[in-house]
Amino acid sequence: MPSHQIHPLRRLTGSAGSTMKVKNLSCSSWQLAVETNNLRDWDSVPATCESYFGHYLLGQRYREDSSMVTKEAAKYARELQLSGNGKDVWIFDIDETSLSNLPFFSKHGFGVEPINDTLFDEWSAKGAAPPLPESLKLYKEVLSLGIKVVFLTGRTEKDREITALNLKRAGYHSWEKLILRKANEVTITALQYKSAERLKLTEQGYKIVGNIGDQWSDILGSPEGERTFKLPDPMYYIS
Amino acid sequence: MPSHQIHPLRRLTGSAGSTMKVKNLSCSSWQLAVETNNLRDWDSVPATCESYFGHYLLGQRYREDSSMVTKEAAKYARELQLSGNGKDVWIFDIDETSLSNLPFFSKHGFGVEPINDTLFDEWSAKGAAPPLPESLKLYKEVLSLGIKVVFLTGRTEKDREITALNLKRAGYHSWEKLILRKANEVTITALQYKSAERLKLTEQGYKIVGNIGDQWSDILGSPEGERTFKLPDPMYYIS
Repeated sequence: MPSHQIHPLRRLTGSAGSTMKVKNLSCSSWQLAVETNNLRDWDSVPATCESYFGHYLLGQRYREDSSMVTKEAAKYARELQLSGNGKDVWIFDIDETSLSNLPFFSKHGFGVEPINDTLFDEWSAKGAAPPLPESLKLYKEVLSLGIKVVFLTGRTEKDREITALNLKRAGYHSWEKLILRKANEVTITALQYKSAERLKLTEQGYKIVGNIGDQWSDILGSPEGERTFKLPDPMYYIS
Repeated sequence: MPSHQIHPLRRLTGSAGSTMKVKNLSCSSWQLAVETNNLRDWDSVPATCESYFGHYLLGQRYREDSSMVTKEAAKYARELQLSGNGKDVWIFDIDETSLSNLPFFSKHGFGVEPINDTLFDEWSAKGAAPPLPESLKLYKEVLSLGIKVVFLTGRTEKDREITALNLKRAGYHSWEKLILRKANEVTITALQYKSAERLKLTEQGYKIVGNIGDQWSDILGSPEGERTFKLPDPMYYIS
């Protein structure tokens, strides 16, 4: 039974969480600009912000910020008038939404270092990513309401097996669909790929009542879903 | 000649700006959730956050956060390939984008108190709102690039004269259009009204190269504009 807590492999020194001082104004402004989609197509986190984001991600704020979003999503879900025909679905992105790669990023500069694909693939191939605790809670609540879950990820079909295994290890035991990128879809943007897959779902008769992701490319592009939720992710940008 | 700085009428005690501690985690999470459009249709700022937002708005962070957005907007504008036919326009919202009502809100709880329409109208009728310094700078840069400015506001036609006067006093001396809400448009949402007005602009041959506002209802809804920018506003929500 995997733990549902995130155990980062490296801890920064210094205070974190509620008593943390906002030492670097530009890092907090950069963060807000990223989260609001004002900054786009950025390659990596400013080097001067490694400590800021290390504290953010390993401290309480990342958890609190995520919890604010998933609690609002759960509230919205509970208030929905569902069709009850088994066609209501909620879309969950995977990386940094359902599963957390923080154990990897905490060893690689929290987004300051450009992602080394080889190392990241090695990490991902372990199938050991923990859940984002807040998203797992939302997942359980959504299922309990009779909404089905569709995982829609930029990961490719070759990783289907390890992805499914990792999801189950992390506590996500069932889903209506697990949609991965096909070989011929790797050249289009995530926004194009995900919008097209959502369109297919609606054409199959599904009603996308909710959609949650950490990237704007998860939740922009028609059909977006009846309502979208954006989790924090200051570590990388996917267009 | 009006000052182009914001001079709040009341200053909270205590330290503000770069040395401010994040005392209340839930206020900063609430703020992020609001700015990312995760929280919607909220009526007023949580009462426990009055001090947090007072410090935020009167201190350096609001300025820094705004500056990060407008600098990115200016960078984007400078890199545009313009048509040069005089039909490239940039849309500016007015309240909390071009003009700041912070002198009013600083006397009324920074969004904690529900807005008293009578008092707000009295303030607004003075035509004395200062500019957001960052937006004024962007306005000047946009004009210097040969892009025309369209002000698109939820204010109504009856306030055309005082709004134009206030804009000029604040340093906004020219515009292609100043679009206000007509009497028959007061029952639709800001999102519907603004989207419809942007559609009219494109039908008139304008190309909306940029669009900046403090509310998501300023920048969502097709046609949004080639690129949108979201300024911070934790004080009120307009759907």
